[in-house]
Amino acid sequence: MANNNEEIFKNVISHAKEYGFVFQSSEIYDGLSAVYDYGQLGSELKNNIKTYWWKAMVQMHENIVGIDAAIFMHPKVWKASGHVDGFSDPMIDNKDSNKRYRADQLLEDKIAAYETEARIAVFGDKPYIESGIIHDLNETKFQNHPKHILAESLQIEMDNALKAEDLSRLKALIEEHKIQCPVSKTCNWTDVRQFNLMFSTQFGAMAEGAEEVYLRPETAQGIFVNFLNVQKSGRMKVPFGIAQIGKAFRNEVIARQFIMRMREFEQMEMQFFVRPGTEMEWYKKWKETRLKWHLALGTDPAKYKFHDHAKLAHYANAAVDIEYDFPFGFKEVEGIHSRTDFDLNQHQEFSGKKMQYFDAEVNPETNKPYGNYVPYVIETSIGLDRFFLVTMINAFEEQDLSTDEKQDSRSVLKLHPALSPYKAAILPLTKKDGLPEKAREIMDQLKFDFNMAYDEKDSIGKRYRRQDAIGTPFCITVDYETLENNTVTIRHRDSMEQERVAIADLQKIIGDLVSWKNLLG
Amino acid sequence: MANNNEEIFKNVISHAKEYGFVFQSSEIYDGLSAVYDYGQLGSELKNNIKTYWWKAMVQMHENIVGIDAAIFMHPKVWKASGHVDGFSDPMIDNKDSNKRYRADQLLEDKIAAYETEARIAVFGDKPYIESGIIHDLNETKFQNHPKHILAESLQIEMDNALKAEDLSRLKALIEEHKIQCPVSKTCNWTDVRQFNLMFSTQFGAMAEGAEEVYLRPETAQGIFVNFLNVQKSGRMKVPFGIAQIGKAFRNEVIARQFIMRMREFEQMEMQFFVRPGTEMEWYKKWKETRLKWHLALGTDPAKYKFHDHAKLAHYANAAVDIEYDFPFGFKEVEGIHSRTDFDLNQHQEFSGKKMQYFDAEVNPETNKPYGNYVPYVIETSIGLDRFFLVTMINAFEEQDLSTDEKQDSRSVLKLHPALSPYKAAILPLTKKDGLPEKAREIMDQLKFDFNMAYDEKDSIGKRYRRQDAIGTPFCITVDYETLENNTVTIRHRDSMEQERVAIADLQKIIGDLVSWKNLLG
Repeated sequence: MANNNEEIFKNVISHAKEYGFVFQSSEIYDGLSAVYDYGQLGSELKNNIKTYWWKAMVQMHENIVGIDAAIFMHPKVWKASGHVDGFSDPMIDNKDSNKRYRADQLLEDKIAAYETEARIAVFGDKPYIESGIIHDLNETKFQNHPKHILAESLQIEMDNALKAEDLSRLKALIEEHKIQCPVSKTCNWTDVRQFNLMFSTQFGAMAEGAEEVYLRPETAQGIFVNFLNVQKSGRMKVPFGIAQIGKAFRNEVIARQFIMRMREFEQMEMQFFVRPGTEMEWYKKWKETRLKWHLALGTDPAKYKFHDHAKLAHYANAAVDIEYDFPFGFKEVEGIHSRTDFDLNQHQEFSGKKMQYFDAEVNPETNKPYGNYVPYVIETSIGLDRFFLVTMINAFEEQDLSTDEKQDSRSVLKLHPALSPYKAAILPLTKKDGLPEKAREIMDQLKFDFNMAYDEKDSIGKRYRRQDAIGTPFCITVDYETLENNTVTIRHRDSMEQERVAIADLQKIIGDLVSWKNLLG
Repeated sequence: MANNNEEIFKNVISHAKEYGFVFQSSEIYDGLSAVYDYGQLGSELKNNIKTYWWKAMVQMHENIVGIDAAIFMHPKVWKASGHVDGFSDPMIDNKDSNKRYRADQLLEDKIAAYETEARIAVFGDKPYIESGIIHDLNETKFQNHPKHILAESLQIEMDNALKAEDLSRLKALIEEHKIQCPVSKTCNWTDVRQFNLMFSTQFGAMAEGAEEVYLRPETAQGIFVNFLNVQKSGRMKVPFGIAQIGKAFRNEVIARQFIMRMREFEQMEMQFFVRPGTEMEWYKKWKETRLKWHLALGTDPAKYKFHDHAKLAHYANAAVDIEYDFPFGFKEVEGIHSRTDFDLNQHQEFSGKKMQYFDAEVNPETNKPYGNYVPYVIETSIGLDRFFLVTMINAFEEQDLSTDEKQDSRSVLKLHPALSPYKAAILPLTKKDGLPEKAREIMDQLKFDFNMAYDEKDSIGKRYRRQDAIGTPFCITVDYETLENNTVTIRHRDSMEQERVAIADLQKIIGDLVSWKNLLG
């Protein structure tokens, strides 16, 4: 069993592979870096997460509709959004190893190294992260330590250089602090250059030169460029939202932590269009609404926290992350951003089309309609893969079930029943005497409404454990009594308790327990 | 109203845009060729089609599971599958216009032109397609006409050149037949070259040169490379299937006919792994099963036909298309292919990993287990967007409802209720006297189970027509009687008939009519 966070994370990853939730992409070819495939259970869980989000955001809100825009968009979209010019990382190459690094990452690592030196000097050489001992970093001895002071000044200088986009200053800092390439161990660096994170491809087959088209780095722009189409054809009235689930692509230089940061990933985004001046009240409302969505699954509220952005993106006037307590610390799962009218304004300017809405409601201050304006936007944006990981980590438990008589344990995925890949498993007690036939008969009644598993191999105990491991909330066992009185046992995954019920009641019992209404109500 | 097929197709396209089913991608930037976005109703209809396919293929088959593999795959996958070397069209450029064409398409157009000349000479100059007059092409006069003979011989020569991949012969044929560029009207051609249809992009950010990665041109390979992962982690036994819904990308030179042939499209594919020697019986079974899936929606069987492939792909030993009668003729919607063990063998060879299955079942001929083999594969592959188009065309009707007293008509989408974006619309008769409040109260009871529309604007008649146009099967009208006795009227979209029912019965009435069981049973 796992003793620490790192081990828990490793166990989740290997559990995900062993039971067909997540595989490395193209594994037989030794994989493709930062790309993953969802297996037979992962695809079901992922679909159920999508359904939960879509139902909660679209079906339950009269004023929100969904769209499904293409991954390919006109190149001008990314010019207007600022991605062509601004969506990049400062990169530097080491001339000896020929390896490329993010310049800011090298500096961050150096800052961390200085801080470690200062900690060790002040608090002793105990590896403070693993030991779990929390040092008082406000202690004067630490605050005055030259390495800590060096770290602080480097941090300020780096932030200033990044803010001013002063690439030669970044290089100078790397050289001044004698930062070595981890591979060649030399300080022989190229200049720092901006490296765009968008994937591009050649579009069309015209002889006069194909067009460069990008794979969208976010789904939001598909919503903005369709704003007028949806508003008009759907007769939508501000405030209203447009939701979308879809793939996005970023050529991440350092992709890591399993499905946490991938080059191909999926977003669930909603852009909510509001009257200018009302955005802060909607921002507050969506913060609350989205956190509720997470907590409805039964997650311990202590696992979540809000993290306000200290530094705002150029298009935002407020932004907050919903963070989850991963084994490697609190990290962003979802962002809620008040994006102002930046995107619609940009598209208005670049396309020459008016991106305005006529608001017929009467302004009580002027006694006239609010009239034409470019709406303000509140965005809620959640990483589907990242939330999939939250779901797996949060559900995964290794339980010691040992008694005085014998050692025992089980791995169980305590998924919310509405999200579980299989809603129930049908298990004939034995493979003979008509029990499999009876079991399949029950399955045939239930399979229209629920995704069902059937298993007749191995002992019933082993089969229970197998279903526990894949998160099936209910096991229905067909035994000899079933043949006599048309009853079965239902075993509950979490409590491992069993009850005897009539076959005729199964539909309602399972239906009530896995209903979306439990999450949406 | 539409008078001919071309007009019907145009009306479907404009209806799709007007009501938020399909928009041109990046329309405010004048669009991106052969790429489309699904709007607020299109995304719901598309999701419902996906659900129908997934339930029918995965949930209803104990031995079929789904996966969701990434679009990016290791480049060697496409080397093994033959796409790097073979997935290309022969292209030729005109040196004066600088325009590029498919060489075989130019020749096909010339053949058609010869045939037209022969028809006009023999049967008169009536435009035979529009007139609907069917000519007897077996008539000796036609068969002996020199232009018809020329067309036939050119067809044979072109087929031979394509088969032999003789690109210089293709060029020679273009020159011999004096084929002109439609733009420059000259015969000044470059050589014919192969043009690969896969989109490629640069992956990673290593200084030593990024890796070229392709956007998958089909989803099938994501299934093949995961064959062992799924079989082992899912403990699957041959015969079994792996299903997948996902995007694929092809740099089509000539993309046209709305969402019929797009550069970015979505496939619903299932690969069924069988014991070698049994593939023909499964091929037959899947042909029948898949046609049934189409017809379950209530489509006129005369609209569908099988079309056997005369020329088989290198990997296939049998292949058939399910064709639908589009306004522009019978065209492929789905393909069923017996792919043999070609793909698994190729991946075995290119990856060095054994792609085998151990079959423990005893062969009655040898009295020994069948043992290790590379399974054979039956594929069912349907274009989601193309089937979306089938659904729209098949459902769209313009009805003349005129009576002696007045002219009247309606546009109605007769979608199967399980596929309809909204299952029901709630319409308060007037906007006052508590009717909207009562209507919303009913909506709040039903919205957990059904995607519901609410509309209180304009006359009730206009609102009925609006719901007809978007395919909502039921309109629930809340009137003054509702306030007295808790009953409402339900109006049926297709018959336009109304009945009065108790609010308490709505859940069951609608539930029964929109249930997936009606399609899957």
